[in-house]
Amino acid sequence: MEAQAAARLELSEQEMREYGYQVVDAIVAHHLNQHKEKPVAQASREEMDSLLREDVPEDATSVDDVFNTVMEKVMPYTNIMSHPKFYSFVPGPSNYVSAMADALATGFNVFSGGWAASPAAAELEIVTINWLLNLYGFPKKRGGGIFTSGGSMANLTALITARNIKCGDDFSKAVIYLSDQAHSSNIKAIRVMGFRKEQIRLIPTDMEFKFAINKLKNAINKDRLEGWKPFCLLASAGTTNTGTVDQLTELSEIAKKEDLWFHIDGAYGGAAILSKNGKQLLKGVEKADSLTVDPHKWFYQPYEMGCLLVRNHKWLSGTFTEVPEYLKDVEGNKSEINFYDHGIQLTRRFRALKFYMSVKTFGLNAFRQAVQYNFDLCEKVESILRKSAKWEVVSPATLAVINFRYHPINQNLSEKELDELNSKISERVVNSREAMLVTTVLNGQIVLRMCLINPRTTLADVEETIALCEKMAE
Amino acid sequence: MEAQAAARLELSEQEMREYGYQVVDAIVAHHLNQHKEKPVAQASREEMDSLLREDVPEDATSVDDVFNTVMEKVMPYTNIMSHPKFYSFVPGPSNYVSAMADALATGFNVFSGGWAASPAAAELEIVTINWLLNLYGFPKKRGGGIFTSGGSMANLTALITARNIKCGDDFSKAVIYLSDQAHSSNIKAIRVMGFRKEQIRLIPTDMEFKFAINKLKNAINKDRLEGWKPFCLLASAGTTNTGTVDQLTELSEIAKKEDLWFHIDGAYGGAAILSKNGKQLLKGVEKADSLTVDPHKWFYQPYEMGCLLVRNHKWLSGTFTEVPEYLKDVEGNKSEINFYDHGIQLTRRFRALKFYMSVKTFGLNAFRQAVQYNFDLCEKVESILRKSAKWEVVSPATLAVINFRYHPINQNLSEKELDELNSKISERVVNSREAMLVTTVLNGQIVLRMCLINPRTTLADVEETIALCEKMAE
Ligand SMILES: Cc1ncc(COP(=O)(O)O)c(C=O)c1O
Ligand SMILES: Cc1ncc(COP(=O)(O)O)c(C=O)c1O
Repeated sequence: MEAQAAARLELSEQEMREYGYQVVDAIVAHHLNQHKEKPVAQASREEMDSLLREDVPEDATSVDDVFNTVMEKVMPYTNIMSHPKFYSFVPGPSNYVSAMADALATGFNVFSGGWAASPAAAELEIVTINWLLNLYGFPKKRGGGIFTSGGSMANLTALITARNIKCGDDFSKAVIYLSDQAHSSNIKAIRVMGFRKEQIRLIPTDMEFKFAINKLKNAINKDRLEGWKPFCLLASAGTTNTGTVDQLTELSEIAKKEDLWFHIDGAYGGAAILSKNGKQLLKGVEKADSLTVDPHKWFYQPYEMGCLLVRNHKWLSGTFTEVPEYLKDVEGNKSEINFYDHGIQLTRRFRALKFYMSVKTFGLNAFRQAVQYNFDLCEKVESILRKSAKWEVVSPATLAVINFRYHPINQNLSEKELDELNSKISERVVNSREAMLVTTVLNGQIVLRMCLINPRTTLADVEETIALCEKMAE
Repeated sequence: MEAQAAARLELSEQEMREYGYQVVDAIVAHHLNQHKEKPVAQASREEMDSLLREDVPEDATSVDDVFNTVMEKVMPYTNIMSHPKFYSFVPGPSNYVSAMADALATGFNVFSGGWAASPAAAELEIVTINWLLNLYGFPKKRGGGIFTSGGSMANLTALITARNIKCGDDFSKAVIYLSDQAHSSNIKAIRVMGFRKEQIRLIPTDMEFKFAINKLKNAINKDRLEGWKPFCLLASAGTTNTGTVDQLTELSEIAKKEDLWFHIDGAYGGAAILSKNGKQLLKGVEKADSLTVDPHKWFYQPYEMGCLLVRNHKWLSGTFTEVPEYLKDVEGNKSEINFYDHGIQLTRRFRALKFYMSVKTFGLNAFRQAVQYNFDLCEKVESILRKSAKWEVVSPATLAVINFRYHPINQNLSEKELDELNSKISERVVNSREAMLVTTVLNGQIVLRMCLINPRTTLADVEETIALCEKMAE
């Protein structure tokens, strides 16, 4: 590195090009070989400290040395969310085209806040949001939306909007209804917004993990009698635990009748609309006032990318507009969209680019095939498990999620023993680092959960993992 | 593209490599040639619609075609935030090493939420947060922090924490104090959190745009008498308008005496600590309970990267921990940090990597030189303006920000005429697309504002722009 250039934080052309190619080569190698790696990384704080802890370096280190350090000491100590045998949480299958599109946006450091800062970034956000509005049957002209860092922020943005529209400034008596299977990010959002615990109604779910509708109706009635002000009903389109879609149409009718904001959290499951089965299951999604969908989950985008859609784009601008003096000059044309007025972030990355470039390149149809493949794979896994005398399906294949437990016939194991056994299986599988397969709790039972949204996961991969579980069980 | 691969959203090795190199070449060319481009992009909604609007494509398009479309129809229609003549808002000078580091993190799709998901990502966030804690003189052992999408989210995260620690669940009588020069993202945050307007005290500033301390003290006393509960004092370390640093030590003493949370918004100005002058100006910053610093501004990182530091890391985990069932398995070792429990986001990008790789590669000393260069440049600009009979310096060079207006001696222009003249100058300069230079409002006057934090901006660049302004004025 040349000293004067370094003081401007610059590399030479040759250094830049070599460095960039090196990074690309590493990413390409990762995409080609990840299935041969172990998806699970494990390291203690002590181990990582001894590898990476250091005081801030005042002096320069060669580009290559830093790169090699990262490839040797950082990248191997991270789970591979896009690995075919990464089954837990919500995997991040991602795709290469989007990763490169994101690099392009970062390399040009595009500021995606306002129209004036980047007409093209705003336009592509409008265009791709329109694609999504259309997919979900939201109003074409009045509908709107925004890309966020993820589902947590999309849900928060939705609920702030709901509160603003339904309650204005005084929400001291407002209550919100969600099921006990709703994602925890919603509870977090509600607390961030300053609601007290007694303003949150966690409604129990039925045997299928859906909203217990009668309990919901009773709760609303009781609250009204007690002087509370019901303002929002939050449904899940794909719960994280079981992939369950709540009764969207029925809930939308309750919301309408009771004058509640109807938010649907489809962060994980919303992408199911791309497949035929999913479209059927998501019927009623078009009735939402607001809908969260996370492209960084089942739309195969890299982190971070969440999305919030709303029936009326003015709800967002009416809730989030704050104009500082030094931005007033650029506010000229009021008819253009400034996305910083539609959500919490002022400075924003150009998230739309990766969505746009990947959908253009592969075509939406390829995404449809991938989602359908995920559905089919999960159903095949269910039928394999059902045929086996060792396994019990606790919650059937739904939106590519399945919950099951090791429960051999004839062995007369108690619930407690089964819980311990399945915990141990997960622990051993994870410790083997061959697959990421952790447990969740359903109806008080500890079960294994697979979320099969990676289009590169094969039936053979899953069979190998089930065999591994059986081995661990013995 | 091979059809079967496409249904898995995959490219061949050759396609991946060529695509990646193409992207790198484009970014390298941009870094080398950006100063020859025009920093300002302008396009109407109609123009952008005609270039880019389309329905979602079901079919694939060749990788090259999509790439070429983006290079021709998207990238030219975006402001160049890293251009040497981009003076407005807070520019985004960025640096190439960080852009590539970010690409690496995205290419590997690292999930930076919990220790178990990526020990290395968590470790690097801890290591780099420690660097920052150290720079700002925060407690080494107990201190903590988190990287966020930007300053808006860092301020929101800080204020939620403040509310939780100081008020618990009932904040109906709580009030917060900030100056009328504090950044609008703080007001937005306060509203997101559910505070009513009457709970916000916007304290006037003095002639130097600093907190009017006596007015602050009076407001606190009055509020206590009226039964309000003062809970937070928010100072700015570098206001966006004028780069002004509030009286941090004095304010910290008031906060201590009054038992208020002391938050400092150094989103823009915090990086000044890297230079000698800046360190002097930021004295007292170490007294904050929480501090926002935005690496994607003056730490030369690409979007998005904000940071919140706190005196005690337990304040964050105590405020943001919500554990869903399906994450319980991985919570095993309670001594490890899960960053999703330290802020709002669950899914999080690996932001620490770019900070780490760029500081390692250039050395912190190069960052120090760059910040010092920005300080010196701004002072040179001030002395040029002061020497001229055409220009009036309205707010002197402070943290590399300067405000000035065209105000020729002997012409006896009224305030209204001066406002119009300077608005017109800005409008014409921006419309020429040669420089991004917009106005702001100070003491009711319309002035031109330059934020000179780009280490590649030369004195000659600024002189050219001033000459252009003079030409436009005539
Ligand atoms: C249903 C649902 N909602 C919200 C979220 C939170 O999304 P994110 O992790 O992107 O913040 C998740 C994450 O798994 C989810 O499954
Ligand atoms: C002082 C200050 N605080 C907060 C912000 C908001 O930061 P961000 O745009 O990263 O959300 C800014 C942005 O310019 C700022 O200057």
